[in-house]
Amino acid sequence: MADVVRQLEAVLESRGFSAPRAATCARLFAEASVDGVSSHGLNRFPRFIGQVDRGIVRHDREPAAVASFAAWERWDGQLGPGNLNALASTQRAMALAQTHGLGLVALANTNHWMRGGSYGWHAAERGMALIAWTNTLPNMPPWGGTSPRLGNNPLVVAVPHGDAPVVLDMAMSQFSYGRMETHASRGEALPQPGGFDSEGRLTSDPAAILQSQRTLPMGSWKGAGLALVLDLLAAMLSDGRATVDIGARPEESGVSQVFIAIDVARANGPTRLVQRVLDDLMTDIPVDPTQPVRHPGEQVRRARAENLREGVPVDVDVWRTIGELLR
Amino acid sequence: MADVVRQLEAVLESRGFSAPRAATCARLFAEASVDGVSSHGLNRFPRFIGQVDRGIVRHDREPAAVASFAAWERWDGQLGPGNLNALASTQRAMALAQTHGLGLVALANTNHWMRGGSYGWHAAERGMALIAWTNTLPNMPPWGGTSPRLGNNPLVVAVPHGDAPVVLDMAMSQFSYGRMETHASRGEALPQPGGFDSEGRLTSDPAAILQSQRTLPMGSWKGAGLALVLDLLAAMLSDGRATVDIGARPEESGVSQVFIAIDVARANGPTRLVQRVLDDLMTDIPVDPTQPVRHPGEQVRRARAENLREGVPVDVDVWRTIGELLR
Repeated sequence: MADVVRQLEAVLESRGFSAPRAATCARLFAEASVDGVSSHGLNRFPRFIGQVDRGIVRHDREPAAVASFAAWERWDGQLGPGNLNALASTQRAMALAQTHGLGLVALANTNHWMRGGSYGWHAAERGMALIAWTNTLPNMPPWGGTSPRLGNNPLVVAVPHGDAPVVLDMAMSQFSYGRMETHASRGEALPQPGGFDSEGRLTSDPAAILQSQRTLPMGSWKGAGLALVLDLLAAMLSDGRATVDIGARPEESGVSQVFIAIDVARANGPTRLVQRVLDDLMTDIPVDPTQPVRHPGEQVRRARAENLREGVPVDVDVWRTIGELLR
Repeated sequence: MADVVRQLEAVLESRGFSAPRAATCARLFAEASVDGVSSHGLNRFPRFIGQVDRGIVRHDREPAAVASFAAWERWDGQLGPGNLNALASTQRAMALAQTHGLGLVALANTNHWMRGGSYGWHAAERGMALIAWTNTLPNMPPWGGTSPRLGNNPLVVAVPHGDAPVVLDMAMSQFSYGRMETHASRGEALPQPGGFDSEGRLTSDPAAILQSQRTLPMGSWKGAGLALVLDLLAAMLSDGRATVDIGARPEESGVSQVFIAIDVARANGPTRLVQRVLDDLMTDIPVDPTQPVRHPGEQVRRARAENLREGVPVDVDVWRTIGELLR
């Protein structure tokens, strides 16, 4: 992993990132790949550097405090790197939680936070619960509608549990565009309906959904409703852009995010509780005897253990592209 | 509506509720029916009184403060009436938010809150955002599992917007048992898959799901994950029971809840933002020209306007049963 981080750092420093900011930014990208989320790890890095080069992401900008309402603060991300801004906001929310029991940072004018789970793991591994979300450009139709007007607005909920926290990291669409593209390129159907075709019929055919752009919100009207209220709260609490405003920009930037940290460590005994609940779930009889019951976070832990042992999974083409970014 | 409230009040007072508590409790039940949610309004009232009569719900118990961590407080619901406890907790979270910008009340040892939306509307109509949830008895299998071990853990997210707030009120199952029973009794299929049959196949046949008890979490693995983290946080923050503990009791009682209020009124301009976002959604071309695009809260507003004009919708059999409860 150290080699991978060093290479990303070198690219970031060549773009003017200070050494400590390059180190943190590189680590967040590498950790996403180690945790099995390459789509927002190494695979995303070239696109991120492209945004730096075009000035969409401003490498040297840090979040600036705008307003304080005691346990709730507003910050301006100044269009800085999304992952550095999000990590700083998580840390600030945790500091507020230490003072007030819980703390909320609302961050306007920031960029894509890459892998949302990073911030959940960060908080949970330090004994804090985290509820965080971001809005996005419009990429999902409202319920009953036909064109992308809602964001898929990823939500992260992290519950501390020693070195095995329960970390939910999910977008509001049932499947990501990336997953639909992978299935489509292999000519495979999705495991369940993932959107509507151009005639408005629910379908598991990824090609038909990629064409219609009508992705299915998770839970249909429920996920559409949740995407909407997350967008409204993110924009309202941060005094930042809503999805409709982000859609009016030439590309996704200037998004709004919320980070709520809760200092559960000061309360008694979270660890026994979580273990007791997970033990109950894991002893259920599985549908498929080869596939035990699942819960959020364990897949990441498995991938992390394997990749720290075997090395960071690196796509050859992506690695070559990253090499070419060095200048 | 006044007649309906008076009748419920009379029944509650006959069970020893003090006059002000009977008035509030009766109003919450009647308002749920007015808002089009009879399942947790009048239709639920006889069962509620049954629980009062059997001592599951203790009519004279009020929440007691257990611990304070500044903006986060723990309360013990003392097995009092769930709707009175939840309203008091919402009000307390709002008071904390006035002091700290946001406030969190975690309530242990309470009872079914009836209609969760009640608390979202209460906060939003007073200019506050609310994020609240409850755990429940086990009624949904974990993802990949076969028996009910997760709760359907309703989540409420309310965003203020003058007299037209956006209020999401949703359980983590795609369809409620009540809705599946209604469809089954009419021999109708669900509008989309709502669970698995006993062989583990996804199905829209409500009878097959009622038999297998394998309801589909909204968004499949995503809703199952969200149900789990909501349960863990509710039990952890309140130091109360998790779903697995509630399942060990003879019937659902002693549940755990969380109420997070955010004092958005002190920040500028929420109303323009919400209107701008809703205007964008509502101008999308609908799939079905007779069914405009939907968003959370408008159905309630429509039902409320109609029922305040035409009178509270009352099922004749339910009304007779309520009459017979008077003693």
